[in-house]
Amino acid sequence: MVAIAAQFTAEAYPQVHRNPAFKVPGPEDVKYFRSFLDADEVLEAPQGDDEALVSFNQDWMNKYRGQSNLVLLPKSTEKVSKIMKYCNEQKLAVVPQGGNTDLVGASVPVFDEIILSLKQMNKIRDFDPVSGAFKCDAGVVMKDAHQFLRDNDHIFPLDLPSRNACQVGGVVSTNAGGLNLLRYGSLHGNVLGLEVVLPNGEIISNIDALRKDNTGYDLKQLFIGAEGTIGVITGVSILAAAKPKAFNNVFIGLESFDVVQTLFVKAKKELSEILSAFEFMDRGSIKCTIEYLKDMPFLLKNQHNFYVLIETSGSNQAHDSEKLTTFIQNALDEKLISEAKVSDNIDEYNTIWTWRKSVPPACNSYGGMYKYDMSLKLKDLYSVSEAVTKRLDAAGLIGDAPKPIVASVGYGHVGDGNIHLNIAVREFTKEIEGLLEPFVYEYIQSKKGSISAEHGVGFHKHGHLHYCRSEIEIRFMKEIKKHYDPNFILNPYKYV
Amino acid sequence: MVAIAAQFTAEAYPQVHRNPAFKVPGPEDVKYFRSFLDADEVLEAPQGDDEALVSFNQDWMNKYRGQSNLVLLPKSTEKVSKIMKYCNEQKLAVVPQGGNTDLVGASVPVFDEIILSLKQMNKIRDFDPVSGAFKCDAGVVMKDAHQFLRDNDHIFPLDLPSRNACQVGGVVSTNAGGLNLLRYGSLHGNVLGLEVVLPNGEIISNIDALRKDNTGYDLKQLFIGAEGTIGVITGVSILAAAKPKAFNNVFIGLESFDVVQTLFVKAKKELSEILSAFEFMDRGSIKCTIEYLKDMPFLLKNQHNFYVLIETSGSNQAHDSEKLTTFIQNALDEKLISEAKVSDNIDEYNTIWTWRKSVPPACNSYGGMYKYDMSLKLKDLYSVSEAVTKRLDAAGLIGDAPKPIVASVGYGHVGDGNIHLNIAVREFTKEIEGLLEPFVYEYIQSKKGSISAEHGVGFHKHGHLHYCRSEIEIRFMKEIKKHYDPNFILNPYKYV
Repeated sequence: MVAIAAQFTAEAYPQVHRNPAFKVPGPEDVKYFRSFLDADEVLEAPQGDDEALVSFNQDWMNKYRGQSNLVLLPKSTEKVSKIMKYCNEQKLAVVPQGGNTDLVGASVPVFDEIILSLKQMNKIRDFDPVSGAFKCDAGVVMKDAHQFLRDNDHIFPLDLPSRNACQVGGVVSTNAGGLNLLRYGSLHGNVLGLEVVLPNGEIISNIDALRKDNTGYDLKQLFIGAEGTIGVITGVSILAAAKPKAFNNVFIGLESFDVVQTLFVKAKKELSEILSAFEFMDRGSIKCTIEYLKDMPFLLKNQHNFYVLIETSGSNQAHDSEKLTTFIQNALDEKLISEAKVSDNIDEYNTIWTWRKSVPPACNSYGGMYKYDMSLKLKDLYSVSEAVTKRLDAAGLIGDAPKPIVASVGYGHVGDGNIHLNIAVREFTKEIEGLLEPFVYEYIQSKKGSISAEHGVGFHKHGHLHYCRSEIEIRFMKEIKKHYDPNFILNPYKYV
Repeated sequence: MVAIAAQFTAEAYPQVHRNPAFKVPGPEDVKYFRSFLDADEVLEAPQGDDEALVSFNQDWMNKYRGQSNLVLLPKSTEKVSKIMKYCNEQKLAVVPQGGNTDLVGASVPVFDEIILSLKQMNKIRDFDPVSGAFKCDAGVVMKDAHQFLRDNDHIFPLDLPSRNACQVGGVVSTNAGGLNLLRYGSLHGNVLGLEVVLPNGEIISNIDALRKDNTGYDLKQLFIGAEGTIGVITGVSILAAAKPKAFNNVFIGLESFDVVQTLFVKAKKELSEILSAFEFMDRGSIKCTIEYLKDMPFLLKNQHNFYVLIETSGSNQAHDSEKLTTFIQNALDEKLISEAKVSDNIDEYNTIWTWRKSVPPACNSYGGMYKYDMSLKLKDLYSVSEAVTKRLDAAGLIGDAPKPIVASVGYGHVGDGNIHLNIAVREFTKEIEGLLEPFVYEYIQSKKGSISAEHGVGFHKHGHLHYCRSEIEIRFMKEIKKHYDPNFILNPYKYV
């Protein structure tokens, strides 16, 4: 991978100005924090050293880069509370940060905001195997939550390609969707309770909530997907499902997006309760991934216009295999699909998933990428990718070096009407950006879609909400922000 | 059924006072409403006639009775908006009302509040068979939504014993749980979008939202379960699931609540993805139901201490039957359960459900009932019923007439940790009420449960939230109420 050192966000976007109401963090602030934090809970950049805190300042796509000199990594909710109380009183701006795998610049500072990392709050708190309620600190890495629950015959109701780095609190803060939303539903349904530190340091918690609680407004919901703009999530209680005994998947090659849709309706009908993922990738996505996974033989004999990954999970291997192989055989017989590779064992199952999960890093491996995440009616879903590719190609920007764009590809979660558009680039240029925006947003608006299906708003889509939200909705959002965070210190320059 | 005419709430609870800030609705208000509403959209009680509007003023349990002389039944969102704008300007208090099957006195007035019935907004707006998005007016009766979706090979993701009367908007307003929450999850996950008229008449809508939309705070969530205190839901978009091809159920007799729990864990493991309901009833529940359904032969040979109804739904009848019969046979062999009746056909399937769904009307058939709806950890779930029955029995109140209490019974949704406690009575007395409250709430508080799992707060539990919510949570709720409804005209004397 060719690493691009991102330009400072403040320089790349000179129209964004630091809010002069915020205090510049100084030695007296660090001194105060050190008065109750351990040595390993405070990280300071040596003066003049831009690189020391780069992993906290720069985002995963190498697109945004803040200039914070101070990272706090508290190990308890009480410490988070003390930090926030002080920052609120002193008007110090704060960016909460989980695994920093965010894709819209939400988890890194823009200027000199203090970075509040949750990574040292990483304890699993409790698990009830009868109800399935799983409680943990916000900073537990998703793969560890998965491992713990698997060891206890359960499953974390969400999975993401970034599972090795992303954290449970960050996932909830950004209302991540992921690979199994089709089966287990959204976090708004699965999160049982949250523990949140408010901007003024108060702790509001219903983390001990039971499966059902209908006593008043469901306050926790506002924090799900709020991207740390109205509170810092420090603890999460979530409903884990019983671990399926049988997992099966299949990788399919087919020739048009119309067939992808037909196949999806057929799968909903015939696989129904065992259908747990229905993902699609276009030709370009897999072409990049073949280059990226160079030593790994491709799954199918031929390349195709579209690929679909279907996963089933259930309680009876024989029943599930029968349902899936019947489904695939019928689709082959009906000539709906061209080729299919059904997994025969756990290794093959994992290998099939590797091809889907490697699409984002593959696209990012040429230097960086522009990334859009949209939801649309299924009939319109792929059209946005075609329109964008056509536009970039007409400008002569796609091709071998020195052209800046390697490929413009589309893939995503058919089951959720969610497409990811990745423009894999050798460099970020204003020309590409000018061709992409506002074109992409206006296209989505014209089709009544959403400009962010699951990645959120962050810095990237700040100020773009009007493409899919009404004036009154935006006004209510701004009022919520003001009500919870009257000094606007939490995650500024982003979101509403 | 012996109908009790409820005492006026204002007389039964003299400590609750009419808010003098509210205008008394008068002829000039009716004149204004008639200026834009059709004749059948305005119902007035003739002067001195307490009975004319009793079906709107009195609740389903015959426990609460308001004294409103005016019911408005607008047929469009725009009319709801005009009504609310006027009421807000004039400080006229308003109670939104759906099917009026509410169980906590939330849907009837306390004094002279204007009743805003949604029953004439009853159109299905749209259905997308690919995504499963179903859009309708708030006043669509749940059984009609079920019928429409079944005709379109889909299923409404929620079912209730009151399905013949309750309305989709009311179900969302009260965040109803119901019989299939275990399978399809809560409304916070299934509702895609809402159209809401705010107290000042503004319309806020995201009813066209897609499956995933991560652009800002999820505003619709606050209205789910708000019981019409911050806005009037006029339209709902909800995710319908593909209709399972196979439905099976079984009615089981067994001897202890410990076994109920063991059986539940076993069912989650072995029936897993096809498990769609796990309901329990105690001996007393079924005794009342046998009396109520007098001409219908009981399902089992003997009576037992506990009964469980398990439902499975899936895509393959042969697979599902095999899973269920294996499960039951093992449970019988292990002597976990005493007796079981598995349905063999659709009539038997419906009959089995009739026994569960008849429990609430059976308990209500002696005149009225006190009803509590609580969630607790599964191990504590039935203990509250035992404690209450013991307390009432010790006071000598349970038995044949003239004793006031027919029976004190418990039943509910094991899968959700949710018990319903019904005290079937011949009359409501202050003595019974004094024995029940605050005892029930204090018991729940001591076990860290919720005093309302799914029925909500309403008038009944107004002022009792501190038994399961913190001071800061209640403060935030009050602030939300004040922010959305600064004149407090929507559904007053209730909720927070």
